[in-house]
Amino acid sequence: VISIRPVLGLPEIGEGDDLAELIAERGELEDGDVLVVAQKAVSKAEGRLVRLADVEPSERARELAGQEDARRHEVILRESARIVRSRPPLVISETRHGFVCASAGVDSSNAPERETVVLLPLDPDASAARLRERLRELTGAEVGVIVSDSFGRAWRQGTTDVAIGAAGVRPLLDLKGTRDRVGYELHATVIAIADELAGAAELVLGKTDGVPAAVIRGVDARGEGTASELVMPAERDLFR
Amino acid sequence: VISIRPVLGLPEIGEGDDLAELIAERGELEDGDVLVVAQKAVSKAEGRLVRLADVEPSERARELAGQEDARRHEVILRESARIVRSRPPLVISETRHGFVCASAGVDSSNAPERETVVLLPLDPDASAARLRERLRELTGAEVGVIVSDSFGRAWRQGTTDVAIGAAGVRPLLDLKGTRDRVGYELHATVIAIADELAGAAELVLGKTDGVPAAVIRGVDARGEGTASELVMPAERDLFR
Repeated sequence: VISIRPVLGLPEIGEGDDLAELIAERGELEDGDVLVVAQKAVSKAEGRLVRLADVEPSERARELAGQEDARRHEVILRESARIVRSRPPLVISETRHGFVCASAGVDSSNAPERETVVLLPLDPDASAARLRERLRELTGAEVGVIVSDSFGRAWRQGTTDVAIGAAGVRPLLDLKGTRDRVGYELHATVIAIADELAGAAELVLGKTDGVPAAVIRGVDARGEGTASELVMPAERDLFR
Repeated sequence: VISIRPVLGLPEIGEGDDLAELIAERGELEDGDVLVVAQKAVSKAEGRLVRLADVEPSERARELAGQEDARRHEVILRESARIVRSRPPLVISETRHGFVCASAGVDSSNAPERETVVLLPLDPDASAARLRERLRELTGAEVGVIVSDSFGRAWRQGTTDVAIGAAGVRPLLDLKGTRDRVGYELHATVIAIADELAGAAELVLGKTDGVPAAVIRGVDARGEGTASELVMPAERDLFR
């Protein structure tokens, strides 16, 4: 049996906050738990914010923005390694991390003040590793940490949360070599557990209620992987 | 707090089995629970099997199969409304339901005998609705039912389970109009809850252990939607 519990009572997160400490005080963490933290809380603690008043939009940003605020699209362009699809004001791009997502992960909802946008962490795997290390220091518990974000999907409606950073978890479970009941090798089955954990946690994260973290107990997902392993390598990608 | 519990002790499912009865006897279902059932169990109960000995592969199937069994690729072609991408023997296609997935959902692992492949249910939403109705009859409990399958994703490694059929659940949670702490309207946020529920359940479903069902408790996902709502309409789809 798996349980998923929201970490309640966290204050609004600001730059420089010790996010691990705030969670440690409320999370009742135990060895083997997986802590899922929403990207926005991590980014805010790391000061990954841009004030739109400081941004001068380029011509390209104005084209992509359509009727919307071109300064936000300028930030999206700066966060993008390449634009995958666009239909103004919608932009799907590949970030420097290799993630393909809307607006290069740049988001204005839940920003600490109006006219400010929140960027993805520079290195979400490193963010997860720091949180994990600090939580061990504060609580003694060996937990896995996932930094999650809501991504849209090709061909399907709606977003699901996925892992953009991970530490102390096995992001992919490879069933290669295991056999099913009649002896077939399940040769093509690699399960993206870290994404399923992130999506499961989203079910208790309030998008509007300020609940940016959840604790999952009962899943054996221990390992030493990173979320960067979840990015499809270019040579295997049929959709580049 | 959410809990996810596997339904243990189910026998191997065969054509004509009363899957709802087998689950009702073991599931301890309560009002408001969401039952997630792996597609393969549903398909087997519904007799959605093809014996490869009965299949004559076309030239096109031989091309797509590369070095693999072209009879399986012939079945994939029959189950496909169109081929989205192919790199022999890998085929990504759109099924008649509108799902974009590997092999049109045709699978040989966990088939009841060698040389047999399992197809997706003809109408997975109807399968879910029948299961829900029969479970109500047998247990008196009003539950949501999701039929799940493992789908790959563009740009990301590994599969996650998604909802291909649903009854008594709200597949999408639309936060349009809700406002975050600083008053921004979360205008672009629609969460694919049914897919997150399917992925969460996968964490307790054994791919090889014959655990094709799980019960999720503590999520308010009640509603009257279907999984067909999760298919991106062509006019909104940037990736067709």
